[in-house]
Amino acid sequence: MERFSCEVVAVGTELLLGQIVDTNSSWIGEQLALNGVESYYQTKVGDNPERIKQVLEQALGRSDFVIVCGGLGPTQDDLTRDVIAEVMGVDLVEDEQLIERISAIFGNRGRQMPLNNLRQAQVPVGAETLSVMPGTAPGLKAAINGKTLYAVPGVPWEMKQMVLEDILPDMREKAGISSIIVSKTLRTWGDSESGLAEKLSDEIERLDEEGGATIAFLASGIEGLKVRLTAKGESRSEVEEILNSEAKIVSSILGDEVIFSYDDQTIEEVVLGLCRDKGLTLGVAESLTGGLIGSRLTSISGSSDVFKGSVVAYSSEVKRTILGVPDVPSVSQAAAESMAVGVCKALNADIGLAVTGEAGPEPLEEEVGRVWMATSVGGDVQSFSVKWPFDRERIRQFTTITILNGLRLRLKKEA
Amino acid sequence: MERFSCEVVAVGTELLLGQIVDTNSSWIGEQLALNGVESYYQTKVGDNPERIKQVLEQALGRSDFVIVCGGLGPTQDDLTRDVIAEVMGVDLVEDEQLIERISAIFGNRGRQMPLNNLRQAQVPVGAETLSVMPGTAPGLKAAINGKTLYAVPGVPWEMKQMVLEDILPDMREKAGISSIIVSKTLRTWGDSESGLAEKLSDEIERLDEEGGATIAFLASGIEGLKVRLTAKGESRSEVEEILNSEAKIVSSILGDEVIFSYDDQTIEEVVLGLCRDKGLTLGVAESLTGGLIGSRLTSISGSSDVFKGSVVAYSSEVKRTILGVPDVPSVSQAAAESMAVGVCKALNADIGLAVTGEAGPEPLEEEVGRVWMATSVGGDVQSFSVKWPFDRERIRQFTTITILNGLRLRLKKEA
Repeated sequence: MERFSCEVVAVGTELLLGQIVDTNSSWIGEQLALNGVESYYQTKVGDNPERIKQVLEQALGRSDFVIVCGGLGPTQDDLTRDVIAEVMGVDLVEDEQLIERISAIFGNRGRQMPLNNLRQAQVPVGAETLSVMPGTAPGLKAAINGKTLYAVPGVPWEMKQMVLEDILPDMREKAGISSIIVSKTLRTWGDSESGLAEKLSDEIERLDEEGGATIAFLASGIEGLKVRLTAKGESRSEVEEILNSEAKIVSSILGDEVIFSYDDQTIEEVVLGLCRDKGLTLGVAESLTGGLIGSRLTSISGSSDVFKGSVVAYSSEVKRTILGVPDVPSVSQAAAESMAVGVCKALNADIGLAVTGEAGPEPLEEEVGRVWMATSVGGDVQSFSVKWPFDRERIRQFTTITILNGLRLRLKKEA
Repeated sequence: MERFSCEVVAVGTELLLGQIVDTNSSWIGEQLALNGVESYYQTKVGDNPERIKQVLEQALGRSDFVIVCGGLGPTQDDLTRDVIAEVMGVDLVEDEQLIERISAIFGNRGRQMPLNNLRQAQVPVGAETLSVMPGTAPGLKAAINGKTLYAVPGVPWEMKQMVLEDILPDMREKAGISSIIVSKTLRTWGDSESGLAEKLSDEIERLDEEGGATIAFLASGIEGLKVRLTAKGESRSEVEEILNSEAKIVSSILGDEVIFSYDDQTIEEVVLGLCRDKGLTLGVAESLTGGLIGSRLTSISGSSDVFKGSVVAYSSEVKRTILGVPDVPSVSQAAAESMAVGVCKALNADIGLAVTGEAGPEPLEEEVGRVWMATSVGGDVQSFSVKWPFDRERIRQFTTITILNGLRLRLKKEA
């Protein structure tokens, strides 16, 4: 089957100057791939009409579709409309319906439409306005020499809605694409990327030969190491069946020790869910993470029915007075264990998590990267230690996901 | 004066697929601007030799310099070397010295160089190797039709070192650029971007007419609202003089209430510094922020001499038992004030910060976005309230910088 291609052009001098990173093109590229459309080039160009024109003409010459992103605002710097009209060899006309739509948006906010915004109601003769219009910038669609050019604003949430609801369906229809590509993300912790790849190497080879899903790895810091399964089919139910059966195979190889979620849930969501199911409350005693564990848990709305709070004991004195830690080295198994027990008592929680360690850069008592972690469940304490070869921020982040995963493993085992 | 231009080409199919966001081009674009080199186009292209060649030839045709980023690794997918040789119309030859340098890097890690890495020692005949080589991928420099092409690896820290230490000086020399452009970033909190712009509008107009520095605003969430001054001159001392005198003018207009740092320090660094200077220790009582305030403070190394810890009281019970909060509504002035006093007692700290509020999305006791904050310094309590019109994550972030800035203002006033 012929593969159609779409080129992405991002317009804006601020992109070239590095004042804004162009994440729009990356996002569009991902959506194109998921819809089976190739993308061979992505270009950034400044707010200069000759150069925008040259880039658009080149893109229309070598790709089937072009999405141009940015330059649809109300100011004199917003040149995309004018350049499209020039490329089409037509004039811009004011669209009465658009003026009404834009005025209505301002009206709903209790404001009058500034005259500037009339610019946004201008449409090249022969071009269409996209029906989806989340903000005041209308998107455009134009047929040019048998190719299709789409223009969307640079504001990410406006752009995304137009691409998902209007442009991709239109593109798929024009390209005769009926298949869909869907991904399913498993999250893991406890094995390295190369370790996972090695364990899955036979399966990856089998998939290469026999087809089905593809497997990709994405190291994502505090979010875990993701294993992304991607498959293609004619309907969502067909693709989901492929993905679910592949997930089962991957699960049988890697095991539930390593895989902590099958639908991209965070470790915080998983741990809060496990605690909630068992009717257990949770308290945290943090040292080197300084509040990061609590901050992550409370980023999930509704966490308050499980999470009672945490004690950030950054000084030995606080470890002693609030958590009842005896006179032991701050970074030690004994300290971590008594912190876990102490925080349960202090916060009246069923489960206590505790971490203590050296985040560096300078060592205080122990070697930098040494961390002791403990979990107390119903008064029963378990502990383990890790030595991270990382910098301060990564030591804190990896410690956070490791202790949460440690609790997950323990609650699963004791279920 | 003639302006030289440099085009940036990022190579890698993963960039087009959106698996990696191309932050390299943005960073290079910023460096070029700071060095007075124009950048009119930036292109992403996949790992395809014909398309890479076409993009490089076009770039060499329309720009004075080209930096191509990525595709210098040891695998078969790394095609940049081969394509450069093709564009130059020459062969690749193995460089004995490079083989030694790369072998030595592996040797230092106690490993033998894999045979694959011999590919990295190949250099197009007539091209030079960049002298800066932080990893195993050598950078390249080639003169082609009077233009200069530089090739750097896609690994950000390797790329950055080569650009800063090797490519930019070379480019400046070739382009005869002796001036330098330097920025100075002031950070502010407490006024909106449009509020700052309005207060500075006369000064911005004056600068437009008379020259000197330029002023730009960058909303940066929990990092504050940045005011970036940029100026150009023949030497660093000359530019710094311009920037320092402009910073004084901006300071006289906005005032130290709004500006919390003059050299891009974070609010955490500033607050820890103020406490340290006064010999005061700090404790935090957090509710809706869940540990974020402590986590930010402890992200600064050396914070332990000031920061004693925090109590994350996510349940009313913990507010009562550890912080001694009386029977008042959880989100109230009385709760915030007694949390601030209570945390000083509980952690034996001189200063107590407290925040309590509704982060949403669902309201529990109060309206979503309502936050009460309190500071206790030496037992004297002050409090204030904010109603944020934001989502959960931004409510938590803006609360964090607001309470830290509140303490800064108080300590400055009482100095």
